[in-house]
Amino acid sequence: MQLTQWTDYSLRVLMYCAACEQRAARVTVTEIAEKFRISRNHLTKIVHDLSVRGLLETTRGRGGGLRLLQPAQAVTIGSVVRVTETDFRLVECFDPVGNQCCVSGQCSLAGVLDQALASFLKVLDQVTLADMVRPRPNSSDDGWQALVRLPETAPRSLLLQEAT
Amino acid sequence: MQLTQWTDYSLRVLMYCAACEQRAARVTVTEIAEKFRISRNHLTKIVHDLSVRGLLETTRGRGGGLRLLQPAQAVTIGSVVRVTETDFRLVECFDPVGNQCCVSGQCSLAGVLDQALASFLKVLDQVTLADMVRPRPNSSDDGWQALVRLPETAPRSLLLQEAT
Repeated sequence: MQLTQWTDYSLRVLMYCAACEQRAARVTVTEIAEKFRISRNHLTKIVHDLSVRGLLETTRGRGGGLRLLQPAQAVTIGSVVRVTETDFRLVECFDPVGNQCCVSGQCSLAGVLDQALASFLKVLDQVTLADMVRPRPNSSDDGWQALVRLPETAPRSLLLQEAT
Repeated sequence: MQLTQWTDYSLRVLMYCAACEQRAARVTVTEIAEKFRISRNHLTKIVHDLSVRGLLETTRGRGGGLRLLQPAQAVTIGSVVRVTETDFRLVECFDPVGNQCCVSGQCSLAGVLDQALASFLKVLDQVTLADMVRPRPNSSDDGWQALVRLPETAPRSLLLQEAT
């Protein structure tokens, strides 16, 4: 039992944007691709999908980039997984088209698996993107905040001094 | 998110045997393969695995076949899924070997998915093979019992009469 890589990467993109909520500079696809060492092309498709699904706002051009369309504390992990994980057919009899099991209809397995799935998603409905990127207590570093920090650039005044 | 076909078929074999608990004639691999239209070879591997894992007893020869090693009401669906579903790495950071995510250790996602998985399995721990094959209330047929019923053969005395 696994979530798709698509869901895994979608969550990373959204958590990254959540960790950047207070950052002045917008997030770019290139930045996330480099940090996670994921193909930029693949990530572009994921970002487009998240944008179509109303989870991300993308702006083109200078100063453009990605940001969450809603506050990170308003987006649950459950709501993300529900839209990114498109196939929840746990076993064959969940599939109304391809199901060939001769006992479905009389068997209680599908109902029980459905309850188990609901219980799985309920746990994910109780936590938000903001919860995921919050620094962990007793952690020696600041985790997500360290990851999203951009390299400091020298102030312009200093650069001008050096040039002269 | 799906369970493997291996788990799906393993559950069918065990539920079939559960439905046959009171039947005099032992279950055979051929019988299950024909009823569910599953490759007999594939099913033989599954039955072997279930036998190695202490869930099935297999007997060779005349009158031999399969039966549950424990009563159907003592075997939970959770205990079956835990042994047949060998890969519960929901996302990359669950994998201690292949994980390349740069933020694992500081990210709360794995812990939350772990809780969700525990919640999924907890539901399955509360139901047994016996619960799965019990006739459903208000059902027009007797489901599993109809499936496992063998075609009636004429009593030997009758056959002898006809032959004479």
